[in-house]
Amino acid sequence: MAVKKMGQQTIRFPLPPKIISAYSIVGPKEGEGPLKDWFDEILEDDMIKEKTWEKAESKMLRSAINASLKNCQKTPEDIDFLLSGDLLNQLMSASYTARDLGIPFYGLYGACSTMTESLSLASMLIDGGFADHVIAATSSHFSTAERQYRFPLEHGNQKPPTAQWTVTGSGALVLASQGAGPVITHITAGKVVDFGVTDANNMGAAMAPAAVDTIAIHFSDTGRSPDFYDLILTGDLGQLGKQIAKDLLTEKGFNVESVYNDCGVMIFDSINQDTHCGGSGCGCSASVFCGNIYKRMMKKELKNVLLVSTGALLSTISTQQGESIPGIAHAVAVSI
Amino acid sequence: MAVKKMGQQTIRFPLPPKIISAYSIVGPKEGEGPLKDWFDEILEDDMIKEKTWEKAESKMLRSAINASLKNCQKTPEDIDFLLSGDLLNQLMSASYTARDLGIPFYGLYGACSTMTESLSLASMLIDGGFADHVIAATSSHFSTAERQYRFPLEHGNQKPPTAQWTVTGSGALVLASQGAGPVITHITAGKVVDFGVTDANNMGAAMAPAAVDTIAIHFSDTGRSPDFYDLILTGDLGQLGKQIAKDLLTEKGFNVESVYNDCGVMIFDSINQDTHCGGSGCGCSASVFCGNIYKRMMKKELKNVLLVSTGALLSTISTQQGESIPGIAHAVAVSI
Repeated sequence: MAVKKMGQQTIRFPLPPKIISAYSIVGPKEGEGPLKDWFDEILEDDMIKEKTWEKAESKMLRSAINASLKNCQKTPEDIDFLLSGDLLNQLMSASYTARDLGIPFYGLYGACSTMTESLSLASMLIDGGFADHVIAATSSHFSTAERQYRFPLEHGNQKPPTAQWTVTGSGALVLASQGAGPVITHITAGKVVDFGVTDANNMGAAMAPAAVDTIAIHFSDTGRSPDFYDLILTGDLGQLGKQIAKDLLTEKGFNVESVYNDCGVMIFDSINQDTHCGGSGCGCSASVFCGNIYKRMMKKELKNVLLVSTGALLSTISTQQGESIPGIAHAVAVSI
Repeated sequence: MAVKKMGQQTIRFPLPPKIISAYSIVGPKEGEGPLKDWFDEILEDDMIKEKTWEKAESKMLRSAINASLKNCQKTPEDIDFLLSGDLLNQLMSASYTARDLGIPFYGLYGACSTMTESLSLASMLIDGGFADHVIAATSSHFSTAERQYRFPLEHGNQKPPTAQWTVTGSGALVLASQGAGPVITHITAGKVVDFGVTDANNMGAAMAPAAVDTIAIHFSDTGRSPDFYDLILTGDLGQLGKQIAKDLLTEKGFNVESVYNDCGVMIFDSINQDTHCGGSGCGCSASVFCGNIYKRMMKKELKNVLLVSTGALLSTISTQQGESIPGIAHAVAVSI
């Protein structure tokens, strides 16, 4: 009966949903990085005239969604569902954005995997005949994430070399049953994978096994091999996590050397920008996909991409209680 | 193209997904309330031999899911997706439950609306041909919620009469494309509605307008009237919120007097149990639906039920920053 399922965890879409619009916004630091020429909008000031970082993050997410709608000449009334989430407790950015937009809303929490979690569910809602237009969007903000997950910024604490830098950024995509743009052909839903890492300053190592698990299952379910893709892109493993993922994939017999990259590695020049292992946060894979990858697909520079956003499902309370960090990764196959 | 959509926000399922199993667990206080004879399991001790309340909540959720699987002779390997969430930051209960079960997992955050958010998405995944079996499950715990949203319990603070009492409870449902049990015929997805309530001790008033908005749109989209249902059941508005919802529905011309109730009102004897306005939390509508309503439907005492779990999308940070409390409500129409 589950006629669209392939293998263990993959869905194939008979009528692939189209990504008809994408919009990316990043903060000033991300706007000085290697991808600066690709983003649709670079903030001059990451407070955006708001009184708090949280309100600024919500405004950034709302702006990205509104701009993605404008790009494809749609209004909130045209959208059947908004699927969104962020890193803040109780999805503060997404909830207040949903209030202001007035679109039927399902809140998602997948930590930094939220971009592909929202894209996966959005694709199923369209292919299933439940919606014509769905928005998948997410955001993160360096200053909101630091004070929620780590220390108050005023504390000025130092980070170890394995730490990552939360991206201030947002990405919004409009998916549609009809229209022009790259299409989502398959999704592979992730399981929670926990290799026992307990260091919240080494999330790349915690998330890499989840990414590898999902990528390996994607190949096995679809019969595809790494060379089918022009690019296999994890969300925010950073440099150490990327290396671990590459090693684990090689051990499993997948040679991804020439096609594998990580959004967290791409977004910053880690040496000159002092971002340690690279970028992280929901906004990392969201802004890199919407800013760089989507446009390169529209230009046909990239034809087949596997986006695998990766999430570390820790909270301050789970860390305080000695729990290890569970990881999750959802894969979305996009083709032009 | 969105062939299964009716009106503004409602989906009609041509092949309604079946609820083939349900299981409810509640804490000792809930087990002394008016519904005590209906719950599948009543905990003697809400720590369940764990060292922290959070770990106890996660164990309760996991136990409810495992028991719901056993009830229908399924194992985690039979399940295509787990859709779950809770009230804790970063979904601590659901994330660790998903880790232990090993089922592909989409984390959801809808505050106390999570039971119907998960049921809505689960129904679409089954009807869309993406899954044969999906688990929709959620939990809340009095002690984890108090310390996260309000004050440390050790503080012993008093609550105003409008406050509600977070239910220690969990409910898990197994939905299937084939099998026996009540069916989900329609869902109505909610928009975020904010009437400007800023008192975190009066969440019933904050959520009631969202419930009324979704219920009114459900009637308009489906052409149904209140008398189609044997029971229209909001999630956790409590006594004050229930009265507000009833008044607002009457103003809109819907006479729900004889068919309307609220899980938060049903679960406690508020006078003798000192629970002020009644129960709240994701586990409230989850345990009442799985414990009481599902069984009454199986006995054909109830034939058509509209379950409308209600969520208040506040966080401690949004409250500290002076934001009002946005509400959301998702409706699920269940028939036997």
